[in-house]
Amino acid sequence: MRISELAEQAGLSVATVKFYLREGLLPAGEPVSKTQSNYAESHLQRLRLIRALREVADLPVATIATVLLAVDDERLPLVELLGVTQTAVARLRLGSPATDAASAGDLLAELGWPVAACSPLRGSLARVLNALSEQGNPVDATSLRPWADAAWQVAEVEVGHIPLDIPRAAAAHAVATGTVLYGELLSQLRLAAQEALSHRRFGGSRLDQ
Amino acid sequence: MRISELAEQAGLSVATVKFYLREGLLPAGEPVSKTQSNYAESHLQRLRLIRALREVADLPVATIATVLLAVDDERLPLVELLGVTQTAVARLRLGSPATDAASAGDLLAELGWPVAACSPLRGSLARVLNALSEQGNPVDATSLRPWADAAWQVAEVEVGHIPLDIPRAAAAHAVATGTVLYGELLSQLRLAAQEALSHRRFGGSRLDQ
Repeated sequence: MRISELAEQAGLSVATVKFYLREGLLPAGEPVSKTQSNYAESHLQRLRLIRALREVADLPVATIATVLLAVDDERLPLVELLGVTQTAVARLRLGSPATDAASAGDLLAELGWPVAACSPLRGSLARVLNALSEQGNPVDATSLRPWADAAWQVAEVEVGHIPLDIPRAAAAHAVATGTVLYGELLSQLRLAAQEALSHRRFGGSRLDQ
Repeated sequence: MRISELAEQAGLSVATVKFYLREGLLPAGEPVSKTQSNYAESHLQRLRLIRALREVADLPVATIATVLLAVDDERLPLVELLGVTQTAVARLRLGSPATDAASAGDLLAELGWPVAACSPLRGSLARVLNALSEQGNPVDATSLRPWADAAWQVAEVEVGHIPLDIPRAAAAHAVATGTVLYGELLSQLRLAAQEALSHRRFGGSRLDQ
């Protein structure tokens, strides 16, 4: 298909598709003339992946490029791709001081969750725990049990669903979108559940607005 | 205390504190001379709240200003404050076409969750559902049950914990930080649980890095 049809099917403007081509997020099409290229179904799938990461998870283009490199790297085991995608989603600020991560280490040990000592997730988790603690909230495993249990439940489903018996390209695609989109789904469902429950607790005034 | 001490205790630079004063996020201190003001414990608490919203949830300054206005509005019921904060966290793009929200309406009806027809959460939830659907994932209540259950569980604890028997200012503070920080906690714990579970499923190679 031509670039105009590709853009339309992906729900993007031609200018945006050209931008992704220039930035290397989308591989070039097959040239059919000096000014035109032909694009395949794989280009459309790639654009849908980019759109999902960009619009739903609000990831910066540079971060998406990192995830896509990992998706395309045939030698990278899926579990490593999961790590790369997690790092992107967590918007980790690497290089934060080691002392920061102590609270996360304590909590993970209490929970009995094996997370690598070098994992950047420790830093991003610690940032939340330190903020909670500064606001006067307890951050031990007992107090945080409801959130830990909920997180574990969905992670079990998600990791259990990582497809191992399909071509790597499709599996990689599923890992990248799954980590990002189901994370966003959980966040949005939590807000919807809060609203639903607040009607029960405080009465239905907001329903009538 | 002086502005330098205030900044130090809040873990911010004096320039940042002055920026928040100029933007109206932080109320002015009590003037003690032509060039100096005195700041109270309430200023420090406000700065910690701003820092939590800014650094942990990565909310833009304008969004934080909206949340703080709601926190300070004594006439605003806590349930409405919860709504304002949820809207900020969901980073809602208002004015998205109504057709977008159909998938969210179907899901919420299937789940039996009362969410106002006009609630902007429907639009942000629909954005995720549409992206999942575009990637070929089912978006009915049965398929999404694990995420809905997990979201409901934590929302029950969170809404149940909204304090009603303490001064409104403190309760408002708790609602705003709770919505933002526990949401971020859940996201980070999910990623940590994914990592812990991927070691089990795929072996411990990443632990040794």
